[in-house]
Amino acid sequence: MPETDCQTVQVKLADRSYQIGIGPDLLANIDQFIDRTGQWVVITDQTVDSLYGERFCDSLSSSDNDVHRLVVADGEHSKSIEVVDRLWQEMIQIGIDRRATVIALGGGVVGDLAGFVAATYLRGLDLVQIPTSLLAQVDSSVGGKVGVNLPQGKNLVGAFWQPQQVIIDTQVLQTLDARQFHAGMAEVIKYAVILSNDFFDWLGENALAIEKRQPHSLQEMIARCCQFKADVVAEDERETTGQRAILNYGHTLGHAIEAVCGYGKFLHGEAIAIGMDFAIRLACQLGRVSDVEIERQRKLLTAFALPIDVPDVEPEKLIEAMYRDKKTTDTKLNFILPDRIGNVDLIRDVDVSTIEALLTRE
Amino acid sequence: MPETDCQTVQVKLADRSYQIGIGPDLLANIDQFIDRTGQWVVITDQTVDSLYGERFCDSLSSSDNDVHRLVVADGEHSKSIEVVDRLWQEMIQIGIDRRATVIALGGGVVGDLAGFVAATYLRGLDLVQIPTSLLAQVDSSVGGKVGVNLPQGKNLVGAFWQPQQVIIDTQVLQTLDARQFHAGMAEVIKYAVILSNDFFDWLGENALAIEKRQPHSLQEMIARCCQFKADVVAEDERETTGQRAILNYGHTLGHAIEAVCGYGKFLHGEAIAIGMDFAIRLACQLGRVSDVEIERQRKLLTAFALPIDVPDVEPEKLIEAMYRDKKTTDTKLNFILPDRIGNVDLIRDVDVSTIEALLTRE
Repeated sequence: MPETDCQTVQVKLADRSYQIGIGPDLLANIDQFIDRTGQWVVITDQTVDSLYGERFCDSLSSSDNDVHRLVVADGEHSKSIEVVDRLWQEMIQIGIDRRATVIALGGGVVGDLAGFVAATYLRGLDLVQIPTSLLAQVDSSVGGKVGVNLPQGKNLVGAFWQPQQVIIDTQVLQTLDARQFHAGMAEVIKYAVILSNDFFDWLGENALAIEKRQPHSLQEMIARCCQFKADVVAEDERETTGQRAILNYGHTLGHAIEAVCGYGKFLHGEAIAIGMDFAIRLACQLGRVSDVEIERQRKLLTAFALPIDVPDVEPEKLIEAMYRDKKTTDTKLNFILPDRIGNVDLIRDVDVSTIEALLTRE
Repeated sequence: MPETDCQTVQVKLADRSYQIGIGPDLLANIDQFIDRTGQWVVITDQTVDSLYGERFCDSLSSSDNDVHRLVVADGEHSKSIEVVDRLWQEMIQIGIDRRATVIALGGGVVGDLAGFVAATYLRGLDLVQIPTSLLAQVDSSVGGKVGVNLPQGKNLVGAFWQPQQVIIDTQVLQTLDARQFHAGMAEVIKYAVILSNDFFDWLGENALAIEKRQPHSLQEMIARCCQFKADVVAEDERETTGQRAILNYGHTLGHAIEAVCGYGKFLHGEAIAIGMDFAIRLACQLGRVSDVEIERQRKLLTAFALPIDVPDVEPEKLIEAMYRDKKTTDTKLNFILPDRIGNVDLIRDVDVSTIEALLTRE
């Protein structure tokens, strides 16, 4: 990979190790960043396709590269087994063989969907993730979680399927709408709270530059997030030791809000922001942190226009949804809770009445 | 695992290593062979369920074991994404969580189907293979290949998903119908031709005892086949080095016969028997083996009532189907061909006119 203006982060997973390249205008020079030739299946959605699809495929196409573009509808509904089935069959019709590489060009939905297609077509194809939303760049494109939804819930079917390469073009964030950009910032702030007080302070100091999407700030921020994620994933690739579970900070209530309010009312990052504010208040209630930390986190979340108030729904419904969430085992409610900005622990079997009291809006 | 009357074979795959237990009446004493507790999902088909389902689940059930039985229709049609989708949704309804174990209780179809469900439900559950057909016992239950068919062809979707344990009860073969038993013998003979002249001779000497399904002969035979498969899989888990490809001896034409004649006319093992006879004749034509080897293999195949004659269809159709087979890359026809009983090589780019001449029935 050329070094100019491009930072790299290594994801160390023995024979499944790979590199993340982060820089501006990587898409426009994609031929320099892709180090293989052959059959390519570019899976993308309508919005990303209209912005980058044709140009991207043209710059990848060559006498050595046979490029096929498959476009799905925008939105969470495309993360279904019906769409996966359609893509499998289209790939068979085209004649895609087992040496082909799938490129996921898009946000989190496209990454999860295309990743699952890659994991299962002919028992597994190579995968390159090219995330185009901030959320996908800092979170979902790294670490190998791929999958689709069932009618009963999100991400109930999937695999751990590591990409061979992740290519992050920071320039594409310039076209991302503000709400999506802010939702991505929720996951950025999450890394700071769970892993690094230094990074938390850095985000505060650079909030204005980030909000203005100043290229160098974005690149620095994304590279640091990818490094955090890479370190956690390297320690617990398949979420078996508990280490990877810290990435679920804010997600216990966040997933419940998404489920109860209907997917679409809140973006994932927005629900996570509310979940993080709730989690740190719960941590305060349990004597783990002081009010000062609640305020510090709130200030950073609201600096990026993120919501923090629990929506006006019955607390019982949220609690019920938390029990159903697959991250909760047995009949106990577990939370990832900070004891300071920069460190969290898994707290098991939190008293439901404490949760209910905190969920009840004053 | 108790030692009495039970042989074990190790499949060495680093952190995915596992043990195969082979012996009589293991199903009836399943509680002695399963060394874990928790939620269990037993996936089986109607025939196996009527013979063993209830008794098996009863003997597995205990205060520590919560056992759920999911039954699919007999036959290849169950190896579809529609059936997988139904099983995923049933498991969600039951409340199966990520610590559960899937048991595949049945022949090759059940093993492939249940294995794919295990590989993908909540990004992967533990799997125990309990194969009940000879073909599944000596071949498909070992090595981690799981998957389903698409309308366009067999096994086009799937994963490599190693079981935690394989439990082979030789007693269940007593109820297997003769045609299915003989079809399984085709894969047994395949191991001998590709890997061991000694085992080939042993099969000839013990043909009568095997045909009578004498328990000790069956156990010895199955254990040796599992050891062969385990060795090949340990060298090339994901079919990337070419070593695992030798297991496809007889399969290039075999798959084409299945595709052209329609699945159901020939059992998989029968098609493979015809494919092996063809492959050794092709090897002879190319000067790799003498007529003597053709006759030796024929004698053993026909001792188990296996067909050897290419069915009366147009050679062009078979050749076309061979090109379509996913094991063939590029536009060349590759064959696994012996140079003696006990050794094979991958021969690339075999001249099509030679194949066509051999396929044309005299």
